[in-house]
Amino acid sequence: MDKLTIVKVGGKIVEEPDSLKQLLHDFSQIEGYKVLVHGGGRSATAVAERMGIESKMVNGRRITDLEMLKVVTMVYGGLVNKQIVAGLQALGVNGLGLSGCDLNYMRSDKRPVTDIDYGYVGDVKEVNAGILVDLISKGVVPVLAPLTHDNSGNLLNTNADTIACEAAKALSTYFDVTLMYCFDKKGVLLNENDDNSIILKLTPSLFKQYVSENIIQGGMIPKLENSFDALKAGVRKVLITRADLIHTQEGTLMEI
Amino acid sequence: MDKLTIVKVGGKIVEEPDSLKQLLHDFSQIEGYKVLVHGGGRSATAVAERMGIESKMVNGRRITDLEMLKVVTMVYGGLVNKQIVAGLQALGVNGLGLSGCDLNYMRSDKRPVTDIDYGYVGDVKEVNAGILVDLISKGVVPVLAPLTHDNSGNLLNTNADTIACEAAKALSTYFDVTLMYCFDKKGVLLNENDDNSIILKLTPSLFKQYVSENIIQGGMIPKLENSFDALKAGVRKVLITRADLIHTQEGTLMEI
Repeated sequence: MDKLTIVKVGGKIVEEPDSLKQLLHDFSQIEGYKVLVHGGGRSATAVAERMGIESKMVNGRRITDLEMLKVVTMVYGGLVNKQIVAGLQALGVNGLGLSGCDLNYMRSDKRPVTDIDYGYVGDVKEVNAGILVDLISKGVVPVLAPLTHDNSGNLLNTNADTIACEAAKALSTYFDVTLMYCFDKKGVLLNENDDNSIILKLTPSLFKQYVSENIIQGGMIPKLENSFDALKAGVRKVLITRADLIHTQEGTLMEI
Repeated sequence: MDKLTIVKVGGKIVEEPDSLKQLLHDFSQIEGYKVLVHGGGRSATAVAERMGIESKMVNGRRITDLEMLKVVTMVYGGLVNKQIVAGLQALGVNGLGLSGCDLNYMRSDKRPVTDIDYGYVGDVKEVNAGILVDLISKGVVPVLAPLTHDNSGNLLNTNADTIACEAAKALSTYFDVTLMYCFDKKGVLLNENDDNSIILKLTPSLFKQYVSENIIQGGMIPKLENSFDALKAGVRKVLITRADLIHTQEGTLMEI
């Protein structure tokens, strides 16, 4: 099978012109087939604020009412996505920006209301990989925005890590997939005060141990759980790294 | 050659939920291959206003400074485009939203500054139809936002009529193309106070006559000039009509 690298980048790196430029350059250097998945939360918060719309977060997740859904549709599907695609084209990378509705490539259900009502947030139910595989095989580089749809006309705000994980799982039937999650450290750290204390390999048993010792905590836990799920579903390799290291593939390698 | 229908709709019809729903239903009824081109100016003005950004228009064209470029990228490439695509998917139409940067399908140059500086506005220079043809032949329905790029990393605001015309011309090499421009009347009118006084056929000589008699004036002139250009470039049929008539193909038929 051909190699396919899926890179997920979030945070301010995709939202500031200089760091975005560097990221796109580094990404363009990755050989073979590739996919870029992006966030855009800071820009969404900034645009919402300027429109007089308050951003409400619970456990680090955005509450997406109808007004906020319009904001994230504009910012994720429009502003951030198209700026990335235009930047890639300038580097000779044939980007194609996609939200879940495009080609019906990712369908989700609106998250059921429990003790928290997240609003128009989607839990992914189906990935139609076929047409993506065709495009990727022709050299197209999908650029995935954190938006899905319910196939009944509604767009849904969807976590970018989840988009990356679900796309990786679905594409692993067709490609030898490496999934890279980028964040602001060089990898998962043994000591949060030492940026060089990178855990080079992480197995499920080590993960459990580190969680019980509070070495791994917070938002990193679901990210790593997703990574193990991806590996179990057939993704070849998952790497937790920093965006400027994507072409050297340093970082924390997940193993099952 | 297979038939391809390109429908351009602008104005409030794509920006209000009820009229959009009706339009998408009517569009879904068109048989054979199809492309939808949309505007979104009213939404852009509304979002800009809410963000405290003033909309400046000259001769009905938007002056697009860097702040306004972000607004139109959000509104055209994100909000309006993705709502249309999600709506089409719900009707079983496999929409794919595209801005000019996507697949590098439409490249433009920033309009030179003369007596007016339109800002980040693009004049179309190149349409890469090949990959669109592939997708259309697989049943994909491109949904084109009024945005292009310069292939140097910059997005450019581009008139939706122009997008429709340039796409029609490029695709006429591969398909038997009908181009429909929708506006708020049933066709070009002989008497602006009589909505039923539709000019059924319009040739270049009749057009010249009506312009000299002030029967045709204003924004309709460039729209019709574009239509004749499209016909000369190989587009089979151009129709000026109202959005609710797209499946009956009534309206003003342009002929050369």
